[in-house]
Amino acid sequence: MRERHLVKDLAAMKDGPVVLGGWVEKLRDQKRIQFIILRDESGDVQVTYPRPADEDALADKVSTLTNGSFIWVKGRLVHDERVKLGGLEIQLDDLEIVTLSEPETPIADDTSIDKRLDWRFLDMRRPEMNLVFKVQTTIEAAWRSYWLENGFTEIHSPKLMASASESNAELFKLEYFEGFAYLAQSPQFYKQMAMMAGLGRIFEIGPVFRADPSFTSRHATEFTSVDMEVSWIDSHEDVMNIQEELMVAAISAVKESHGEEIKRLFDIDVIVPSRPFPRIPLADAVDIVKARGHEVVRGGDMDPEGER
Amino acid sequence: MRERHLVKDLAAMKDGPVVLGGWVEKLRDQKRIQFIILRDESGDVQVTYPRPADEDALADKVSTLTNGSFIWVKGRLVHDERVKLGGLEIQLDDLEIVTLSEPETPIADDTSIDKRLDWRFLDMRRPEMNLVFKVQTTIEAAWRSYWLENGFTEIHSPKLMASASESNAELFKLEYFEGFAYLAQSPQFYKQMAMMAGLGRIFEIGPVFRADPSFTSRHATEFTSVDMEVSWIDSHEDVMNIQEELMVAAISAVKESHGEEIKRLFDIDVIVPSRPFPRIPLADAVDIVKARGHEVVRGGDMDPEGER
Repeated sequence: MRERHLVKDLAAMKDGPVVLGGWVEKLRDQKRIQFIILRDESGDVQVTYPRPADEDALADKVSTLTNGSFIWVKGRLVHDERVKLGGLEIQLDDLEIVTLSEPETPIADDTSIDKRLDWRFLDMRRPEMNLVFKVQTTIEAAWRSYWLENGFTEIHSPKLMASASESNAELFKLEYFEGFAYLAQSPQFYKQMAMMAGLGRIFEIGPVFRADPSFTSRHATEFTSVDMEVSWIDSHEDVMNIQEELMVAAISAVKESHGEEIKRLFDIDVIVPSRPFPRIPLADAVDIVKARGHEVVRGGDMDPEGER
Repeated sequence: MRERHLVKDLAAMKDGPVVLGGWVEKLRDQKRIQFIILRDESGDVQVTYPRPADEDALADKVSTLTNGSFIWVKGRLVHDERVKLGGLEIQLDDLEIVTLSEPETPIADDTSIDKRLDWRFLDMRRPEMNLVFKVQTTIEAAWRSYWLENGFTEIHSPKLMASASESNAELFKLEYFEGFAYLAQSPQFYKQMAMMAGLGRIFEIGPVFRADPSFTSRHATEFTSVDMEVSWIDSHEDVMNIQEELMVAAISAVKESHGEEIKRLFDIDVIVPSRPFPRIPLADAVDIVKARGHEVVRGGDMDPEGER
């Protein structure tokens, strides 16, 4: 694999030769000097090239660059406090264009969500969007560490089933050779069978499918479900305690790995909650919601509007 | 959560009171003494109760036990070298029956695979079957450690798609409200879009679906796919190197965590391969297979029979 330096590692490196790979975030093609803002999966850095007085092949190459083009950059790292972008600069020695982008980008920061989803892979290059996937990876890793340290076994339960796993209402049906199959709405059956099988404690992170036509963020036809099942508990208190520990583990890990970036990009301080969390009996929750003027149907669960 | 000791931890504990939860693997209900072999998710241990001369409620309770029943056991741990099962014994003080099993078990060790799959949750209680899930958990954890240490991001790509991800031949089609959707045969599109989105290196472990009617172990309609995608490589050599590192990481972890149990249950020594693995060019592989009398169609990939 070609040696490649990541932008996030440059600050700790000494001045000297580096090789970077990433895409052109911005180009400022001036008469005397050219600037490329280069972004890779870890951050962005300024690349500079003082344009020679005479005809120059490298300067011409830089001029052809379009936003979003993927390039290899060979240069010399220089720490310089005057540079706004992290106090670092790459002085360009050589440039290799991997792929030149179309000069017109179909989306901008103020493009509507629908159109941004049409160009999802471009939208994801925005640091705010990209960070979502990094945070998700961190959360999942924190949960898995918790589970593995606490003796859980991982399962991958079937998604094609011969019958419904929950109600028939939300079922996706598909042609399965001569017959039909259904998509799992939940790993519930398999989780419980894993307990009977003597695994004791299991977890699964995987897709489930619900043929529910509602258009709220609570009702997606497909979502990634985080499931666990625990044998030998005394009561729901045990489950609530594990849930609290999982939440604290996840938020602690996010704060540690991404706290600064979340602050910078979203101006949000990540706060790790302390345990035990406040617990509000359903009857009290109903009273609170009623006091704020919302009608709750007597005896049932809280409705979505009330939960908000 | 009720305090509970796992069988695997008993050997390191001092003699004294313990609480165990698990199922009855075997009962020997003798005139003078009763033996229960109790198994939990971590191993099995012998529980003994010297039957008193007079009527005794606890002895009667033990007598009602059937194989597979889930029980809580309160007793005193005694290290005793004469006990075959790990040199440990639990002297019974109290017994709580969580669930009493039907006395007849529908499967035995020599039952056919079809019938065992009909009673999968019972079959999985066999240590050989149960171990499969522990090993799978260990392998997946080893891969994830490798990926996270090497800057990979995890994705969960959609399984419901509007069109085929590979050929149309192996496609499952399902009714999706007014229209149709298809089950993903591979996360290929999404992996590649994640590269374009600038994630750089990603992995995904999740189900994929192939409507392939073949009945070989190479063709399942649903399987758990282990996927990764890496940007900025020079050649297939980079991918082969990563694959080798993943294999070594997985097998090392399995040897460390389960090597002894695999030896005991299957009489197999887990051997960690050394890198680099031998690499055989396709042309040479074809020659080797031909020399053994197998016809290979010229110019194509190796056929499944030849690979064997």
